[in-house]
Amino acid sequence: MSVEVRVGLLGLGTVGSGVISIIERHQEELRHQVGCPVTVRKVAVRNIEKQRPAEVDRSLLTDQIEDVLFDQEIDVIIEVMGGVDSTKEYLLQALKSGKHVVTANKDLMAVHGTELLNVAAENGCDLFYEASVAGGIPILRGLTDGLSADRITKMMGIVNGTTNYILTKMTQDGSSYEDVLKQAQELGFAESDPTADVEGLDAARKMAILANLGFSMNISLNDVSIKGMSSVTKADLDYCDQLGYTMKLIGLAQRDDGRVEISVEPTLLPNKHPLASVHNEYNAVYVYGEAVGETMFYGPGAGSLPTATAVVSDLVTVMKNMRLGVTGQTIQAPLHQRSLKEDKEIDSKYFLRLRVLDKAGTFQAVTSLFASHEVSFEKLLQMPVEGKEVAEVIVITHHTNKENYLNLYNKLSELDVIESIESCYRVEGGK
Amino acid sequence: MSVEVRVGLLGLGTVGSGVISIIERHQEELRHQVGCPVTVRKVAVRNIEKQRPAEVDRSLLTDQIEDVLFDQEIDVIIEVMGGVDSTKEYLLQALKSGKHVVTANKDLMAVHGTELLNVAAENGCDLFYEASVAGGIPILRGLTDGLSADRITKMMGIVNGTTNYILTKMTQDGSSYEDVLKQAQELGFAESDPTADVEGLDAARKMAILANLGFSMNISLNDVSIKGMSSVTKADLDYCDQLGYTMKLIGLAQRDDGRVEISVEPTLLPNKHPLASVHNEYNAVYVYGEAVGETMFYGPGAGSLPTATAVVSDLVTVMKNMRLGVTGQTIQAPLHQRSLKEDKEIDSKYFLRLRVLDKAGTFQAVTSLFASHEVSFEKLLQMPVEGKEVAEVIVITHHTNKENYLNLYNKLSELDVIESIESCYRVEGGK
Repeated sequence: MSVEVRVGLLGLGTVGSGVISIIERHQEELRHQVGCPVTVRKVAVRNIEKQRPAEVDRSLLTDQIEDVLFDQEIDVIIEVMGGVDSTKEYLLQALKSGKHVVTANKDLMAVHGTELLNVAAENGCDLFYEASVAGGIPILRGLTDGLSADRITKMMGIVNGTTNYILTKMTQDGSSYEDVLKQAQELGFAESDPTADVEGLDAARKMAILANLGFSMNISLNDVSIKGMSSVTKADLDYCDQLGYTMKLIGLAQRDDGRVEISVEPTLLPNKHPLASVHNEYNAVYVYGEAVGETMFYGPGAGSLPTATAVVSDLVTVMKNMRLGVTGQTIQAPLHQRSLKEDKEIDSKYFLRLRVLDKAGTFQAVTSLFASHEVSFEKLLQMPVEGKEVAEVIVITHHTNKENYLNLYNKLSELDVIESIESCYRVEGGK
Repeated sequence: MSVEVRVGLLGLGTVGSGVISIIERHQEELRHQVGCPVTVRKVAVRNIEKQRPAEVDRSLLTDQIEDVLFDQEIDVIIEVMGGVDSTKEYLLQALKSGKHVVTANKDLMAVHGTELLNVAAENGCDLFYEASVAGGIPILRGLTDGLSADRITKMMGIVNGTTNYILTKMTQDGSSYEDVLKQAQELGFAESDPTADVEGLDAARKMAILANLGFSMNISLNDVSIKGMSSVTKADLDYCDQLGYTMKLIGLAQRDDGRVEISVEPTLLPNKHPLASVHNEYNAVYVYGEAVGETMFYGPGAGSLPTATAVVSDLVTVMKNMRLGVTGQTIQAPLHQRSLKEDKEIDSKYFLRLRVLDKAGTFQAVTSLFASHEVSFEKLLQMPVEGKEVAEVIVITHHTNKENYLNLYNKLSELDVIESIESCYRVEGGK
C-alpha cells in the first residue's frame, strides 16, 4: 500500500467544505489513528470560479467529474454532491475501478443501497454511508457494530431536523405551522421548497436505510407508509399538551416474528419518553434490542461539520481497512427475506379528534361504534366549541390493530352525529 | 484459521449467563456476520455444584481457572468474574499465550488498562472492554469509531445506575436518601454495601476509562476528583426544583487547550438538558466534539443481558478481526502526555446553600465577600427557616474558576453571620 491515502471529492458544498476543513485540522490525529497521512487530491465542482472558503486549494478543483473518477492515484471517493440516477452511475464506475466510496447521500442509498453494496462487495471495495442518516450521530455503526450481538426489534427516530424544529417551535411558542416554517426558512433550517421534509419523504428515506441495516432485510422506500406533518394544527398540539403528550414526526420500523412494519407519521409520545425531549433541529434514534433493551442515540441531524464528521469517520474506517487489507467485507447483504406486516398485524394506540353535534345521543352513538370495533378508550376528553352547537371529542385509544382502527375510522366518518374528524395520529412510547 | 471460534469464560454470574444465552440464541445471526460458528468450550466457576440456568451445559464447567487459560484450543477469553490483581495476572497470561480478551471489568481497566492494552498489542491480541462502561451503551465504539474524525472536548456522563435510581426516586417521591437506598437494595438496584456506588468510585472508574480513550491521554483513577452523593438532602433537591434544575451524579471529563479536568460529583443541570431526563437506573453519556457538537448515548447501564450484549458485540469484533487476520491493532496507546488542569483553569458555576443569621447587615456581609472574590450571582433565593432566627440563602453563581470558588468557600465558612454552609454543588449544562 502507498504511504498515503488519496481522496477525491465529488461536490464542495457545505458538507464537502467541512470534510476538507476536518481533514486539514486533524491531520495529526488522523495519522495517529491510521498510521499514514491522508490528502485530498481532486475536487469535482460545477463551477470552478465560484468563491470558496480559504481552506480549499483552487488548484485541486476540476469541473470534469471524470478527472476524479478516473484518476488512478485516487483511493477513495467521497460523494457529497447529491443526486440519484447519474450519481449512482458515477459511484458504480468508481467501485468497479476499485475505488472505495463514502457517501452522505440518503436519496441514493434509500433507493439503490443494496445494488451499490453488492457491487462494492464484488469489487472488494468499501462503501460507507453513516452521514446519510441523522448527520453526526453514529447510528449506523451503533447498529452494525455496537449492537451486533443483539436482535433489533424496533427503531423509532426523529430523523428530520426541519420538522422537529417546526414542531418544537409550534409547541413551545404556540405559533402556526406557516409562521414557523417561514421563520425556519429564514434561519436556514428549512429549504425554500420544504416538501420532502414536511411531507415525510426525507425521514422515510432514512428509515428505509435504518430498517435495511437493523433488520438485515431488503426493505424499499416504497414499503414505508408516509404521512407528513404539514396539517398538524395548534389545536392538536394543545390537546396533546393537555393529555401529557408531545407530538413528533416519528419514523418507526418494527419487527415481530420476522414481520416488519415501517412508517413515518406525526406521532404522540408521552412527555416522559426520551424522544419527547429531543428539541429543535436535533435528531435522535431510539433502538430496542431484545437483549439490550432501550438505547438512544442523540445528536445533530444535519449541518456542515457534524455531517462532515460522519463522512471523515467513515473515511478513517476505509483507511484502516485499506491498511489492514480487509476492504469490501464490512456491510453484509440482507439476511432475511422481505416480509411486511398486514394492517391486522400492526398494533398501536391512536389519538382521534372528532367534532360532534352537541346533542343528546351523540356520545352514545360514538362510543358504541368504538365498542363494536373492539377499540376501547384509554383517555377521553370532551370540550365545547365556543359559539357553535358542536363539541370536540378527543380520544386516545388502547392498543388496537390497524385494520380495526381503519374500519372504525371509515365508520366514524360516515356517522351522522360526527361533523368531521379533525385529526388522527398514532400514539407510541407507552405500554 | 479454524472453522469455528472457541471461547473460554472466566466467571458465570449474571453477565456470564447472559453471554452464554445470547451466543446460543443468536447462532444464526452471529454466523452470518462472522462467517463461522462460535462455541463456548470451557467455563471457569468457583463452585461447580451450584444451581445454574438451564442453558449452561454442566460438562463445560471447571473450578480450575488454568483449565481455561491454558486450553490451547481456546481462541478468546471472556472475563466476567471481576477482581483486580489476580484477574490482571490471569489476563496477562492469556494475552501472552496469544488469546484475545474481552472483559467487562471496569475496576481492572480503570487501573491497569494501559498496561493490558500494551501487552495485548505486543502479542498481536485484541483486548476489548465495551461492557466496562455504561453496560449496554456502545459508548467506547462511539468514541473510537463513530467520532474518530472529531476532537472530543467534553464528556458528561450519568454512568452509575444505582445513584441515578436513588436521585430519581428522591426527586420524584420526595423520599430521603436512606429510605430510597433501602428500597433500591430490596429491588436489586443497589449492593448491600453501596459505598463504591454512592461515594462515586464506580463512576470515577468509568470516567477514567472514557477520558483515556476520548482524549487519548493516560489519565489514572487517582486523577479523578470524587465527591459522592450520600449527603444530598431532600432540601437540596427541593431548591434545585424551585430554581429549574435537576440533580444528577455527573462524571465530567473536559479538555481545553490540551489540559484536562476530570471529576465525579453531584451536579445541577438545567431541566431542559438532555441528561436531566435520564431517569431511574438508566445511564447516558453526553459527548461534545469540536465538529459534531453535542451527541448523547443513552441506554441501560447494567443488567445481565445489556452487559452481555456489549460483551458479545466485542466478541463479534474479535471474531471478525481473527477471520481477517488483523487482531492486536484496534485500540491505540494514548497519543498525548498527561496534562491536568490546575484549579484556576477549572471553570464552572456553583450552587451554594448557606444558613445565615437573620439580622441586619448579614446579606451585605455575604454579598461583599462574593464580590471581593469576583464571584457574581446568577440566581439568588432567600428563605426564612421556620421557628429559628436564621434564613437560608441559596446562590447559583455565574461562571468562576475553582480557585476563586474555594477561596470564597473558605472565607464564607469563617464568616460570623454564616451559621453553616449546608451544601454546595457544581452546576453544569448551561451557558
